[in-house]
Amino acid sequence: MSGIGVFDSGIGGLTVVKAILRELKNEQIIYFGDTAHVPYGNKSERTITKLSTTNVGFIIKNNVKIVVIACNTSSALALSALKKAFNVPIIGVIEAGVKAASELTENKRVGVIGTLATVTSRAYSKTFALFSPKIKVFEQACPLFVPLVEEGWVNHKITKTICSEYLNSLKKYKIDTLVLGCTHYPLLKDTIQEVVGNKITLIDSANATAKEVKRLLAEERLLNFNSKPNEHKFFVTDFPLKFNGMGKRFLGSPINASLIDLDYE
Amino acid sequence: MSGIGVFDSGIGGLTVVKAILRELKNEQIIYFGDTAHVPYGNKSERTITKLSTTNVGFIIKNNVKIVVIACNTSSALALSALKKAFNVPIIGVIEAGVKAASELTENKRVGVIGTLATVTSRAYSKTFALFSPKIKVFEQACPLFVPLVEEGWVNHKITKTICSEYLNSLKKYKIDTLVLGCTHYPLLKDTIQEVVGNKITLIDSANATAKEVKRLLAEERLLNFNSKPNEHKFFVTDFPLKFNGMGKRFLGSPINASLIDLDYE
Repeated sequence: MSGIGVFDSGIGGLTVVKAILRELKNEQIIYFGDTAHVPYGNKSERTITKLSTTNVGFIIKNNVKIVVIACNTSSALALSALKKAFNVPIIGVIEAGVKAASELTENKRVGVIGTLATVTSRAYSKTFALFSPKIKVFEQACPLFVPLVEEGWVNHKITKTICSEYLNSLKKYKIDTLVLGCTHYPLLKDTIQEVVGNKITLIDSANATAKEVKRLLAEERLLNFNSKPNEHKFFVTDFPLKFNGMGKRFLGSPINASLIDLDYE
Repeated sequence: MSGIGVFDSGIGGLTVVKAILRELKNEQIIYFGDTAHVPYGNKSERTITKLSTTNVGFIIKNNVKIVVIACNTSSALALSALKKAFNVPIIGVIEAGVKAASELTENKRVGVIGTLATVTSRAYSKTFALFSPKIKVFEQACPLFVPLVEEGWVNHKITKTICSEYLNSLKKYKIDTLVLGCTHYPLLKDTIQEVVGNKITLIDSANATAKEVKRLLAEERLLNFNSKPNEHKFFVTDFPLKFNGMGKRFLGSPINASLIDLDYE
C-alpha cells in the first residue's frame, strides 16, 4: 500500500504530519524537509519552484498516492508548476485553509498571516477570489515569527510584543477569522489568540489540510484499512542545529530522519 | 590586474566590501553571495563546507589574488577545508576580529556574539587560544539578530529588548571588549552599544578584516596602484525579496548583481 507524501521547506511541515496522523492512523507518511534550503519565505519564485520540483520528484519516486505541499510558501508559488510536472494528486495547504475559513467566517472578513513570499504572492487573496469571491481578505507578513519559533521563544514576553506589532493593524479591519498561513505559526497559537482576542477564530491550515487529505483519499477509495501501515520515512537535506528538539516540538514525538543529497541543477 | 574575492552566505558580506573599499579604493571586488542558501547560521558543518567550497571555487575562476570569507559561520566551519582545497590566499573574518580584540582588551576578558553555528563551533575561542591564550572568551549566540536586521527593525524598541535579553548575561562576565561575530551585526551597533554601555569596546570584524587584507596585499606586493580598477562584479544565487533595499543598506550604494546557478553535488 502506498503512502502519503508530505513536502516542506524544513521541519515545520511536521505539524501537518501530526494533523494527518490524527485523522488517518493507518497511513504511512513519506516526509521530505528541505532543511539545506530552509527558509523559503524570502526566496524568489524561480528558486522556490526549482527546489520544490526537485524535492517533490524525489517524494514521488518513493511510492506515494498523494503529495501534500505542507509549506505555504511553496503552495503559494509552486503549486501550479508542480501539478503540471507530476501525475500524482498534489494538494497545497492554502486551498484547505481557504475552504475552512470560508465556511467559518460570518462577516466575510478574513485575515491571513504568512511569510513575506506568501503574502507578496497574494496567493491567499487569489484563492479566496476563486472559491468565495465575496470574502474580503487582509494579508499581513510576519517575517519574525519563524525565527522566534525556531529560537524556542514561544511563550516569551517579547513574542507577545512582536505579535501585537504585526497583528494590531489586522484587528482594525474587523476580521472575524484569521488563517495561520505558515506551518510554524500553530506553535504561537496561544499568544496570537491572546493578542487578537477571543472573537477572532484562528484557522490552523494543518488541521484543514488533514481533513482535505482524508476526504480526497476516501473519494478515490485510496484509504488504507490495513491496521499495520509501513513505517514512516523522514528525509532531510541537512541536519540543522537543534534538529532533534525542533522535530519533537513540531511532531510531538522524536523523529528518525535520513540525510539525502539531491541535484538541484 | 586581478581582484579581491569576497564570499558570503548572503548579502551581509557587503559590509566587509564597504570596509575594504574604504581602505583600498583602487581594488576590484568579485563578490559572491549564496542567497539561495542563506542563512548558514543554523546549518550543519558538512553542508556549510560543501556550499562554501563550491562557491569559493567559482570566485577563484574569476581571476582573484585573494579570497575573503566574509561569512563568520563559513569562516568558523569551512576555512581550513577551503585553505586545503585552493592555492589562492584565503582569509576569514574570525582571525582578523580576534587579532583586533586581542590588541584592544585591557582586562583580557572578551565577549563574542554570533550565529548559533559560529558559537556552537567555538571557532572564536579556539582562535583566541592560538593567538592570545591568556584572554578569557565568553561566547553568546544571538539567532534573532539576523532576522531583525533583515526585517529592517534596526532602531525598533523590540530590538533593544532582544539585545538586552541576549547581552545581559555577557555583561556579568565583566568583559571590556565585544566582537560582533556576524556581518549583519554592525547594523545593530548603536543599539548593542547602548545596551552593553560605553565601557565595552565593540569590534566590527569588517573593519578589522579590511585592514588585514590591506596588510597582506602590501606584504605580497599585490596592491593595485592603477587608479582605474576593473568594474566590481556581484554574483548571487537568488534574488531574494527586498534584495535591492537590503543591498543598499549594507553597501551604502545600490548594487547591480548577476544571478548564477552552481551545481552543488
